[in-house]
Amino acid sequence: MPASRPKTGAGRFFEDFRLGETIRHATPRTLGSGDASLYLALTGGRFAPQSAETFARGIGYPASPIDDLLVFHVAFGKTVSDVSLNAVANLGYADCRFLKPVYPGDTLSAVSQVIGLKENSNRQSGVVYVRSKGYNQRGETVIDYVRWVMVRKRDVNSATPETHVPKLPETVAVANLGEACPRIDRASFDQELGGSPDWFEDYRAGERIDHVDGVTVEEAEHQMATRLYQNTARVHFNQFSEGQGRFGRRLIYGGHVISLARAVSFNGLANAFHIAAINGGRHVAPLFAGDTLFAWSEIVETATLPGRDDVGALRVRTVATKNRPCADFPWREGEGYEPHVVLELDAWALAPRRP
Amino acid sequence: MPASRPKTGAGRFFEDFRLGETIRHATPRTLGSGDASLYLALTGGRFAPQSAETFARGIGYPASPIDDLLVFHVAFGKTVSDVSLNAVANLGYADCRFLKPVYPGDTLSAVSQVIGLKENSNRQSGVVYVRSKGYNQRGETVIDYVRWVMVRKRDVNSATPETHVPKLPETVAVANLGEACPRIDRASFDQELGGSPDWFEDYRAGERIDHVDGVTVEEAEHQMATRLYQNTARVHFNQFSEGQGRFGRRLIYGGHVISLARAVSFNGLANAFHIAAINGGRHVAPLFAGDTLFAWSEIVETATLPGRDDVGALRVRTVATKNRPCADFPWREGEGYEPHVVLELDAWALAPRRP
Amino acid sequence: MPASRPKTGAGRFFEDFRLGETIRHATPRTLGSGDASLYLALTGGRFAPQSAETFARGIGYPASPIDDLLVFHVAFGKTVSDVSLNAVANLGYADCRFLKPVYPGDTLSAVSQVIGLKENSNRQSGVVYVRSKGYNQRGETVIDYVRWVMVRKRDVNSATPETHVPKLPETVAVANLGEACPRIDRASFDQELGGSPDWFEDYRAGERIDHVDGVTVEEAEHQMATRLYQNTARVHFNQFSEGQGRFGRRLIYGGHVISLARAVSFNGLANAFHIAAINGGRHVAPLFAGDTLFAWSEIVETATLPGRDDVGALRVRTVATKNRPCADFPWREGEGYEPHVVLELDAWALAPRRP
Repeated sequence: MPASRPKTGAGRFFEDFRLGETIRHATPRTLGSGDASLYLALTGGRFAPQSAETFARGIGYPASPIDDLLVFHVAFGKTVSDVSLNAVANLGYADCRFLKPVYPGDTLSAVSQVIGLKENSNRQSGVVYVRSKGYNQRGETVIDYVRWVMVRKRDVNSATPETHVPKLPETVAVANLGEACPRIDRASFDQELGGSPDWFEDYRAGERIDHVDGVTVEEAEHQMATRLYQNTARVHFNQFSEGQGRFGRRLIYGGHVISLARAVSFNGLANAFHIAAINGGRHVAPLFAGDTLFAWSEIVETATLPGRDDVGALRVRTVATKNRPCADFPWREGEGYEPHVVLELDAWALAPRRP
Repeated sequence: MPASRPKTGAGRFFEDFRLGETIRHATPRTLGSGDASLYLALTGGRFAPQSAETFARGIGYPASPIDDLLVFHVAFGKTVSDVSLNAVANLGYADCRFLKPVYPGDTLSAVSQVIGLKENSNRQSGVVYVRSKGYNQRGETVIDYVRWVMVRKRDVNSATPETHVPKLPETVAVANLGEACPRIDRASFDQELGGSPDWFEDYRAGERIDHVDGVTVEEAEHQMATRLYQNTARVHFNQFSEGQGRFGRRLIYGGHVISLARAVSFNGLANAFHIAAINGGRHVAPLFAGDTLFAWSEIVETATLPGRDDVGALRVRTVATKNRPCADFPWREGEGYEPHVVLELDAWALAPRRP
Repeated sequence: MPASRPKTGAGRFFEDFRLGETIRHATPRTLGSGDASLYLALTGGRFAPQSAETFARGIGYPASPIDDLLVFHVAFGKTVSDVSLNAVANLGYADCRFLKPVYPGDTLSAVSQVIGLKENSNRQSGVVYVRSKGYNQRGETVIDYVRWVMVRKRDVNSATPETHVPKLPETVAVANLGEACPRIDRASFDQELGGSPDWFEDYRAGERIDHVDGVTVEEAEHQMATRLYQNTARVHFNQFSEGQGRFGRRLIYGGHVISLARAVSFNGLANAFHIAAINGGRHVAPLFAGDTLFAWSEIVETATLPGRDDVGALRVRTVATKNRPCADFPWREGEGYEPHVVLELDAWALAPRRP
């Protein structure tokens, strides 16, 4: 048998990344209305513009947009085989901005640039920072975000790269919000159909909202969602190997946890119809199949957008728990988190201003 | 922190309903071919007009219609947050008529009117009757039905409303059937493709049909279906709270049970391609994940439609059981039902007349 | 009650088949982009032409094609009620050729011809060979294959038909490959987006590829997939009856196992974007929910196609196992198979030639 190059990739290890390197990811993906239906069936979203063509067109969209988080997951999913197949941990994301709406029929592809490297002192692994962008079929950037992951080394003795830790904004600046949101005709924003009597002006910084509803997740659900996103991280799919691992079970993709928390937040934030930016997020603990997710949110800040009187921005910190209702707003406890907390997400959402 | 209005709704209690009151429900929903695919994958439908564009167009539809029961569930789902979030029990429905076909791309919204109120003698709860209508994007009524639910009171001492119980028809009159069914070209109704050699004329009142096949339901399936319908009743999704409740588990949405029975009924009623009306339905017992549903039907009555020689109406009573085959047609027993029965549904279905 | 013909079919028994007989199957099915999305979510496919409109059009397709195996399953599913409802075992398939690409909006129907009959010596059952064809709405054959199944007899004493065993090709001839693949613009085949740096010329006969990833299957997943294919074989859906049967549980449809193995094979065969033919397949052992599927492939043979310089054909034997990684290429052992093997599939896949 003649020799030939190995066909199966083992993914990049820490020493394979070069500062400044650009990686174009496989597989491009056309998102259709069927993806939107399936996303809705998997997460439970009820935000009106994403649910109804008529509502979307009525307020100023040319069509019902693909849910922001579905865009995020698809763009994210493409980066996994190249960036995080050998990751020990997803450490965080920052500076995530939605820049163009995505509509059924659009095709997304993704490119990442290595913007930071820092080997750990034990030399077993290191932190890789990438800025990833998702593009549509016209080459327009639809999403732009940074994430950092701890990646194993193949060879502990490989050379240590120069440490470079990028400076990242704590929050996305208000001036950078709203690019993916067309001008909204707020007089046409039907609040009964939208599901909430509140306008942007009705929210106050410091206000806390219990989203009440709990949703139990099944293995089939998170697996289908994660495949819909073409995210191939093996910890989500392979019970044979995970059964022998640290948790003894498959992990639910953290992004899907974000989607569930977002869907649950409809009860209290129904008119915050668009996520304009994610300032940061932390997966405090894993969620497993059989767990029931609850969530609450705090309005951290409210901001008007320069040059826009149609929508305002709510900075929302959403905390999700497992198997613990959130009527008393569980969050931090001492140095750490209340033990049931699984997610803390800091995002900017847009809501229509009072006409 | 400044005071602000609570953002999360707790749903209406019995004393919140007013006779004659009209409620416009959130969230409108555009149904696409992806919803039809997902519905098919979740229920197992095989009726030809709903499955194939060619078949539908061949017999006279302008396009493959959205399954009648998917229309019902979507219209129903919207009413839940406003009508039955605090329901103790769904007691029944009546006078359900399908008035216009729904096609991919149509957007449904729903409005309910309170048509009856009756406080229970213990003053803990009361029965609310609503007539709900589903509309398409042109404002045409596509479905119209009545349901009644027992709803908890917030305050036992709140004033008792005047009792008003609406008069409801036992069955939908034959003259009111068929509005959602275009004129069918029965000569083009290909029975081999349709899956049955029988025409309307081949069914006899009193005839009983065992649908033979059994289908086991999984938690992920009924949850995905119920989210597809945007039905938010918590008993279907929240194992944390339901685990502490009466059954110790999540309840399968009764409407999904109807869909499964309808899909199973293809074996024996393949040419009864359209549900024109639901006369009434009773969820005799809950179905749980892991249960296997079986069903049988009796042709209660057959009727020709005034002014139409293309289709005839079969009044079908379908009985579904759990974990019990239906070869011997289990139904009532003494005062009640045979112990495995979960559903009794009385509906009018249309079948093509012999060409 | 007047007598009337039984409405429920019990399926054909061995003595009901006639050599040469043609059976047109119910129900035609229009495949849309929503079916493609759902198939992707259920199997995990990442092949670029099936995933992205832009990629498909760039290399020469008029649109993103429906996955070959989804076409196979839908065409196969229709034959089940007529051919294999009373099957004891699916024995094999051969000479399966994909003849036309299928695009969203196409409607598939299926016709089978009985091409062989052979009663077993115990007279309890017999083997039925059918050649089944799938057609699109223009009457063009999109898929053509032979399968044979062992079917029970209704009456052991019924007459024994003349034995006729059709001669079937061991492999599909190279000259018959590629009809469903338009001319590929290989210079436009972007390998970074495609997910592999390899061209047809980079594969060698005898080369073995471990596809590495394992996927655990859930009941809800295989049931949804099998319903998506409108395959009604009861062993996949009915836990009540299967719980009392040989395995005590529902069987996963063998075709879905093929789809999972195909999806997993992306890791190593990403550019083998089209299955042109299936030479044969053997379901060595059943797969059950909870099992984790792994797979490896051997390149049995490589072949250029007469008259085509755009793509070449790889004859690939894929072996799938359950609960056993494939790094050491488990396959046969003594007279039989290594105990974890569930599938052996012999297929021709096309890959772009080096530009």
